[in-house]
Amino acid sequence: MDKYGKRIERVCAEMKKAGIGQLMVNDHLGIYYLINGDGSTVLFANRLFALGDTGLNTVTLTDTDDVAGAVAKHIKPGKMGVDKNMAARFLLPLMDVCCDTRMVLGSDCVDNVRARKDEEEKQLMRRASEINDICMEKLAAYIHDGVTEKECADYLDRCYGEFGCEGLAFDSIISFGANAADPHHSPDGTVVKEGDCIVIDIGCRKDHYCSDMTRTYFWKKADPRYAAIHDLVREANEKAEKLIRPGVRFCDIDAEARKHISAAGYGEYFTHRLGHFIGMEDHEKGDVSSVNTAAVQPDMVFSIEPGVYLPGEFGVRVEDLVIATEDGCELLNHVDKRFRVLGK
Amino acid sequence: MDKYGKRIERVCAEMKKAGIGQLMVNDHLGIYYLINGDGSTVLFANRLFALGDTGLNTVTLTDTDDVAGAVAKHIKPGKMGVDKNMAARFLLPLMDVCCDTRMVLGSDCVDNVRARKDEEEKQLMRRASEINDICMEKLAAYIHDGVTEKECADYLDRCYGEFGCEGLAFDSIISFGANAADPHHSPDGTVVKEGDCIVIDIGCRKDHYCSDMTRTYFWKKADPRYAAIHDLVREANEKAEKLIRPGVRFCDIDAEARKHISAAGYGEYFTHRLGHFIGMEDHEKGDVSSVNTAAVQPDMVFSIEPGVYLPGEFGVRVEDLVIATEDGCELLNHVDKRFRVLGK
Repeated sequence: MDKYGKRIERVCAEMKKAGIGQLMVNDHLGIYYLINGDGSTVLFANRLFALGDTGLNTVTLTDTDDVAGAVAKHIKPGKMGVDKNMAARFLLPLMDVCCDTRMVLGSDCVDNVRARKDEEEKQLMRRASEINDICMEKLAAYIHDGVTEKECADYLDRCYGEFGCEGLAFDSIISFGANAADPHHSPDGTVVKEGDCIVIDIGCRKDHYCSDMTRTYFWKKADPRYAAIHDLVREANEKAEKLIRPGVRFCDIDAEARKHISAAGYGEYFTHRLGHFIGMEDHEKGDVSSVNTAAVQPDMVFSIEPGVYLPGEFGVRVEDLVIATEDGCELLNHVDKRFRVLGK
Repeated sequence: MDKYGKRIERVCAEMKKAGIGQLMVNDHLGIYYLINGDGSTVLFANRLFALGDTGLNTVTLTDTDDVAGAVAKHIKPGKMGVDKNMAARFLLPLMDVCCDTRMVLGSDCVDNVRARKDEEEKQLMRRASEINDICMEKLAAYIHDGVTEKECADYLDRCYGEFGCEGLAFDSIISFGANAADPHHSPDGTVVKEGDCIVIDIGCRKDHYCSDMTRTYFWKKADPRYAAIHDLVREANEKAEKLIRPGVRFCDIDAEARKHISAAGYGEYFTHRLGHFIGMEDHEKGDVSSVNTAAVQPDMVFSIEPGVYLPGEFGVRVEDLVIATEDGCELLNHVDKRFRVLGK
């Protein structure tokens, strides 16, 4: 059985658990992940896309075709799983035509399988993170007096390009000084100044798989208080990573990092969840947060990224990707995360 | 009454026509377009977004809240219009909670209003296209021996940046030679060669409104056959534009351009619709195609972009934006569209 057969077998097991007899996969990554010649799969495709021979039972549609009518012919009465992101313009007409079919959210059946990476996927994730490690070091070496956040982002694009990446896993976050207090700041014309923190949250997409890492540096010098907060956040990151192993609940991993930061009085400045799942998308279903009571399973890949943000002043975040193993976790990022002043 | 009041009045008229008593607007541009302090409007917002005081009746939610439950409290029995892009993960739980409400596609009520631009919007669209005109001329002057498509795209980004644009309206298409045979080619490392056609399909986003124009040039010299096809496509563009006035059907405008290209034997190489609506998005609801039997109304803004693509060989497209007026149309692009050889 090839990798697709194994994946579909796992999806079918999830469907059985959920009591869903049929499943519609709309998401293009879900299709990419599962596409194979299994006789029970029907591919609905717009003829604009030159698919070549997929070996699949394929229904070809045009922009002006009645999509709901064409799809409905393949739907049986009963419960039908649909994609969490399926748009109302497809879903509502389909519900009108398939009166005897009850549409329910079904993409968990695929997402739960995608959350646990197979060997090939783990290898691709290691490679994407290896490139990310190298490019983080290159970027740290590139930063110089007078450089802007935007120039750093452009330089990084070129670095990823040299490794044959398809592109960014997400818009790069490169924030100097007070800009770093906004966890999602976009690189702009801000020039680096002595004493600035430099938050670099970056990731590439290589052979369809994403990397994602954050390091926080300082330019020329650092306020001792900021250095101490950096240590605090790095320790929170390490404590959380140390806790990871199958059976441990994600909420407890989140709590481990949060407890450490709160004990130092900065809990209210750690304003987001500790991490998110990742794979072909930078944010996949599943997270490391106070509300996720599920337990770690081997081969899950997610981020551990505590942060502290002091509005108008500065921010620190330290993030690695990890793969859960049978008895712990494998770190995918190896760039030194200890306090570091650049430009000296 | 301010512009928002007028827009909401027009949306309510559309809702009445469609028999929809309530409407949910999910699309962020739809929200931006309509947002005001009208007492019948409720804004549901994640607290992650620092909204400031909108004057609106606002329900604040967090990532972990029961969104369906919170929204359901504001929904009455009867017919409820929902956004065409509303995701199943919001729609299906809402339908489970609101059993007495029938969900129907309702975003046409907003899209039909957005299709007809008000004075402020027309002014913004004129300005975005004016910038696009200037940047097209700058780019044509920038092209030089050894330049790559990607370098042209990067240069264009800088040009738009100088005008304070928010960014691109869409990924720039800059295609040399045979690359131009693919209407959606992405700029890459291809270097311009003598005799190449140069298709430039570009647009910026300025103050939330989009521009979009295509010109096709030639580098140093042009095969007489290509020059003739360029004339043909330019004539098709002009014939279609001449036909535009309220009451004329979009399918007839499409046919006018297609007829001209087909008469010369290139009909099968004009592989897409003639145009699309545009505004805050580069592609808005509505198009100029064989299947759109609706009639032009004043203040609609759309593209007219015939093209001919010879696979593996070359491509030509000539595109302007127009605003329909009371008795014809206003062209938003003024860059000379006649056959032109650059680099001589």
